[in-house]
Amino acid sequence: MSRLVPVILSGGAGTRLWPVSRSAYPKPFMHMADGESLLYKTLDRALRAANGAAVLTVTGRDYYFLTRDEYARHPSADAQHLPFLLEPAGRNTAPAIALAAMYTMQHLGTDATLLVLPADHLIRDVDAFVADARRAQALAQDGFLVTFGIKPASPETGFGYIRMGAAVKIAPPQPFGQLPPQAGGANSSCGREISAFVEKPDRVTAEKYLASGDYAWNSGMFCFRADALLDAMQTTCPDVLVAARTCYAAAHGRESPVEFDKDAFAALPDISIDYAVMERAVRRAVVPASFDWSDIGSWKAVSEIDSGAAPDASGNRVQGMAVTIDSENCFIHGGKRLIAAVGVKDLVIVDTADAVLVADRERAQQVKQVVEQLRRSDHAAARFHQTVHRPWGSFTVLEDEADCKVKRLTVKPGGVLSLQKHSRRSEHWTVVDGTAKVRVGEREFLLQRNESTFIPMETLHRLENPTQKDIHLIEVQCGDYFGEDDIVRLEDVYGRTAKA
Amino acid sequence: MSRLVPVILSGGAGTRLWPVSRSAYPKPFMHMADGESLLYKTLDRALRAANGAAVLTVTGRDYYFLTRDEYARHPSADAQHLPFLLEPAGRNTAPAIALAAMYTMQHLGTDATLLVLPADHLIRDVDAFVADARRAQALAQDGFLVTFGIKPASPETGFGYIRMGAAVKIAPPQPFGQLPPQAGGANSSCGREISAFVEKPDRVTAEKYLASGDYAWNSGMFCFRADALLDAMQTTCPDVLVAARTCYAAAHGRESPVEFDKDAFAALPDISIDYAVMERAVRRAVVPASFDWSDIGSWKAVSEIDSGAAPDASGNRVQGMAVTIDSENCFIHGGKRLIAAVGVKDLVIVDTADAVLVADRERAQQVKQVVEQLRRSDHAAARFHQTVHRPWGSFTVLEDEADCKVKRLTVKPGGVLSLQKHSRRSEHWTVVDGTAKVRVGEREFLLQRNESTFIPMETLHRLENPTQKDIHLIEVQCGDYFGEDDIVRLEDVYGRTAKA
Repeated sequence: MSRLVPVILSGGAGTRLWPVSRSAYPKPFMHMADGESLLYKTLDRALRAANGAAVLTVTGRDYYFLTRDEYARHPSADAQHLPFLLEPAGRNTAPAIALAAMYTMQHLGTDATLLVLPADHLIRDVDAFVADARRAQALAQDGFLVTFGIKPASPETGFGYIRMGAAVKIAPPQPFGQLPPQAGGANSSCGREISAFVEKPDRVTAEKYLASGDYAWNSGMFCFRADALLDAMQTTCPDVLVAARTCYAAAHGRESPVEFDKDAFAALPDISIDYAVMERAVRRAVVPASFDWSDIGSWKAVSEIDSGAAPDASGNRVQGMAVTIDSENCFIHGGKRLIAAVGVKDLVIVDTADAVLVADRERAQQVKQVVEQLRRSDHAAARFHQTVHRPWGSFTVLEDEADCKVKRLTVKPGGVLSLQKHSRRSEHWTVVDGTAKVRVGEREFLLQRNESTFIPMETLHRLENPTQKDIHLIEVQCGDYFGEDDIVRLEDVYGRTAKA
Repeated sequence: MSRLVPVILSGGAGTRLWPVSRSAYPKPFMHMADGESLLYKTLDRALRAANGAAVLTVTGRDYYFLTRDEYARHPSADAQHLPFLLEPAGRNTAPAIALAAMYTMQHLGTDATLLVLPADHLIRDVDAFVADARRAQALAQDGFLVTFGIKPASPETGFGYIRMGAAVKIAPPQPFGQLPPQAGGANSSCGREISAFVEKPDRVTAEKYLASGDYAWNSGMFCFRADALLDAMQTTCPDVLVAARTCYAAAHGRESPVEFDKDAFAALPDISIDYAVMERAVRRAVVPASFDWSDIGSWKAVSEIDSGAAPDASGNRVQGMAVTIDSENCFIHGGKRLIAAVGVKDLVIVDTADAVLVADRERAQQVKQVVEQLRRSDHAAARFHQTVHRPWGSFTVLEDEADCKVKRLTVKPGGVLSLQKHSRRSEHWTVVDGTAKVRVGEREFLLQRNESTFIPMETLHRLENPTQKDIHLIEVQCGDYFGEDDIVRLEDVYGRTAKA
């Protein structure tokens, strides 16, 4: 078979998982109880499916450094084989996948097959997933546009459904890599025809679907040959195809990261691959998934997954530090703070450094309304966490008062902050771990653990980590204004011009 | 009339108001929505009732500096007329009041009348309170032991009740100070006899009490002549009287603060004034209160008082920053963090720097169980806040990690930290507001705003505020251990030997 190229689609705010998910740190970066993020888990199964070959990621420009850092933690990740397409804005899945197909045909093989994976799904049985991916690949090889259908666990009204038709028979595929013996053997069926995509049903209809056995949840994962997809688009959505070709051409065949022109990108129709292609295409199939699946669509979904934290005798599930008194069926997700629940039931309680959520478990979908309200008032808690990620590392605001601002900075090995100055604040730096290379004015020196230095107002300075170990540094800012916009950047290795 | 001496009894953990009330910062220090603490409000009405004369305070030794600071904020407070009796441990109200009576007779007048006021009650109508205090004083002058009866607002089962008997007639008292014209005039009745003290009733009985009109809540406020009280104790609880005399004698007639010997104090019976005296005394009376009253016994009580924060259309009352979506009748008490409530009702949500409480409003009494559980596991959140008060000011822990601890210190005008050293940490100080006098080793110098200094491990140092303005200072500790017990004190102006 031809090469399988997993395409990770990573974006979306995941506002229903506020306050953990924020636009600057969205759902794919959210850590599960085992300490791994959804994105990391997605990369893990993509690498398993790719079998050593490349994994392509389509994500927002703002998430590039954060995503790369997350990938770097995976022992099998090789940055050489993890190309990125960076979107200047969100334009839904059809344009993203079209661009991924074009990139793949140019750089990874004209006959390659794409395996499209949203970065914010949770699948625990990776072996079953890889086996199903092989079935889908076999169908895709035969020209089918393939989706994965999830066997409904309940009469869910929040998902679209696929009505599945007759079994699809294909020629037995060639053995390939880690292909499990049961997948796609001779005389076996890899999947079923798609009779129809159906919209989110009401409860009664959803119950009928569940009972019939012929309906599956539409997972948003796909598999198709890159050329077959682009061919289908010619018929189903030529406007998307033309705009995507223009946008792709303007990127001049760069290898990675590919940054698309803002205006060309803005001209792309905002449309999903389901609407633009799958619902209108002719040769399509569904692989009934043999793996478990959750789209972690709300705190209710998070509370229901088997997270390793076993519920207590009253059904309370606690991540973090909590005391529960006469409370039942609560999900408590905490951080450093203690959470006490007294006489309550069926609540979701989520605590972060700067925001606390208390929600009825059954109404957890409405959490997005909190974010909408915060956005309307331009509240920072809709976008940022107290810990803010930067290409060079991260900072956490420890104190933000009228007379000072205190931050903990973490600078990664090799990380270099921009050469900068401030006009309304001085800074006092104390290194509490690691060794920093510091420039203050024209002086350059090393600052060791337990040493401090002073950066007067209007003085050019730069901080970098020339070592192999993280630097931790406490910064005390003195002045009369501490906004992130009081910064003049003279040089920046990450190409940032206007923001920290 | 003789002099009226208000006696403020300030102590008690107030565990039902956790996480705002903690043993190191208990209920009297809790701030109401108007920004004033219960203690400050109690002092205010005591000063009004004392009419310029002394107010005596009985409190725990640990609360002395904090209480003095709170008093110093009152424009009419004169430290010369605010003597303190400091208890080395809690021994309930009978011993505390006996000692107050002995102190009063020695230092403030043998014929003085005590007005006993717990520091954790809320009374809004101070004029009515002062008028009722005058009525009580008139009765006390006539030798009565007087309590204040609160007209029940509901069939409360959490209070003891007083069955009120016939009106008590006394001779018209002499005009005195701000005595309101209606109080204790000729032929008027100042109060009623006490037929009986009755225990906390069940609901049905409480409803009968409410309907009858002859029952009042026992408020825990009292008025009696100091000599009349001690005379009564001779009969009702001679053991308390004897132990109190021994304890008082050992204090050698010091004026203020009077610190009692730990062992002599420990020998005092742990008994309330109700049991020890009021229930057994002969000549006693009740003044039906014409003022509003709340003992702020739980978060439910806090949520019900008219706090200035008007409830929204759904009955939610918010102090701090909150977003409520489809939520009803919730009480939200926050600090710096954002609190979001979604689809919940009848909850109390209280957020502090290091702990969050979510409780059913009707089960708010059970909050004390949280504190009991925390105490069993010796969790700091049962005792301390993130901001810890010291005689010289306060500190707030901003960060406490393996590699460093960061604090904001506030040093009051005249505040002097002990001359000290640490064996496992160095300290980096940056003044962010004010001017500090600093000693490091043998050097002594001023540290101005935006200046910093370094205190190496094992180096003697001292910080003081020689100015009239608070100092704010950020302290970054580097080392391998940051416990408050890594401190060797060589000199301390507050007489502290073992703790910071």
